[in-house]
Amino acid sequence: MVTYRKELWFHLNKRRGLVNITEAISEAVTESGIKEGLVLANAMNITASVFINSVEEGLHEDFEKWLEELAPELPYERYRHNTEKEKNADAHLKRTIMGRETVVAITGGKLDLGPWEQIFYYEFDGLRDKRVLIKIIGS
Amino acid sequence: MVTYRKELWFHLNKRRGLVNITEAISEAVTESGIKEGLVLANAMNITASVFINSVEEGLHEDFEKWLEELAPELPYERYRHNTEKEKNADAHLKRTIMGRETVVAITGGKLDLGPWEQIFYYEFDGLRDKRVLIKIIGS
Amino acid sequence: MVTYRKELWFHLNKRRGLVNITEAISEAVTESGIKEGLVLANAMNITASVFINSVEEGLHEDFEKWLEELAPELPYERYRHNTEKEKNADAHLKRTIMGRETVVAITGGKLDLGPWEQIFYYEFDGLRDKRVLIKIIGS
Repeated sequence: MVTYRKELWFHLNKRRGLVNITEAISEAVTESGIKEGLVLANAMNITASVFINSVEEGLHEDFEKWLEELAPELPYERYRHNTEKEKNADAHLKRTIMGRETVVAITGGKLDLGPWEQIFYYEFDGLRDKRVLIKIIGS
Repeated sequence: MVTYRKELWFHLNKRRGLVNITEAISEAVTESGIKEGLVLANAMNITASVFINSVEEGLHEDFEKWLEELAPELPYERYRHNTEKEKNADAHLKRTIMGRETVVAITGGKLDLGPWEQIFYYEFDGLRDKRVLIKIIGS
Repeated sequence: MVTYRKELWFHLNKRRGLVNITEAISEAVTESGIKEGLVLANAMNITASVFINSVEEGLHEDFEKWLEELAPELPYERYRHNTEKEKNADAHLKRTIMGRETVVAITGGKLDLGPWEQIFYYEFDGLRDKRVLIKIIGS
């Protein structure tokens, strides 16, 4: 059994945004040399998500609008978590809807994804350095 | 370390519906010969879910009504993703609530589920062939 | 490859509540002797969650209020699942938002968590014995 660990770092210059990390995770799988196994990719911060959906800008706008309806950023006083200094309660809730992590199969040395499956990092409280952890286990 | 891979195929004759796949995943575990490990089961399409809850028809109706409130199918113009041809934005959002995948423990050669835990495929945009991936890793 | 299995038992004296289980899972990792691998922690009941977020009481109150908005407990007749005897449909829906399980990396014999990541059990229908399953796989 072999394991492999890698971190991806992000610094978005806005509060919210999506980054396609499929290629970066695919590279980590190649680096690991693992042919059959599982890869875990998780946000290491609690105001960001790793999730799987399609590369379609209209859909990404729909996600943005929908999450804002389900867990509005404003007014800040809506949430007990928000203080003078911290104003990201909505980011904790939005990330809960989208999920912390995904587990993807590795088959024949490649990510075993469906035809439209792409892996995304979703930032809900940017403007600072944040990480995704990739942990691969297999043989 | 041993791995095993299997696909389950679905073709629902309606837009939305639930299929209990516990038995099919259980069979895959038996076929794998793996006694201790993990099984990943994930939708390979981005408008379907694999999730765990109970076999109770009333509850399944509650899920249906609740998801329709949280991410309504209509009006189609509500979503940027919807076009003349494609009208499944709600399916992408509903599947996000229910989740793409589940990871279940294997103990003593069997799915290590709680007493009421059953694994379901939830289709949100049917009337075509779609797949679930089962990947098992263990010894 | 080594695997390790452990159950955590809970009995909350109220309908809903959060329990920080990071330390208990960390102990299970130590007991397993596994240095590199993955740990799965999942609710074995379908009206409870295992999820990762921060230790912040204000935020936990925000989760409580938010989940009650997204999936209200009352009126009980709102849900088909509720009967004379069973009144926990909202618990099934709330747990769906928060998730059944989490998968966490193990690196150097420790849980590989981000600086604010803590693992919680979220009970949505307490006043009875319920379990979390920990399954560890690695070397």
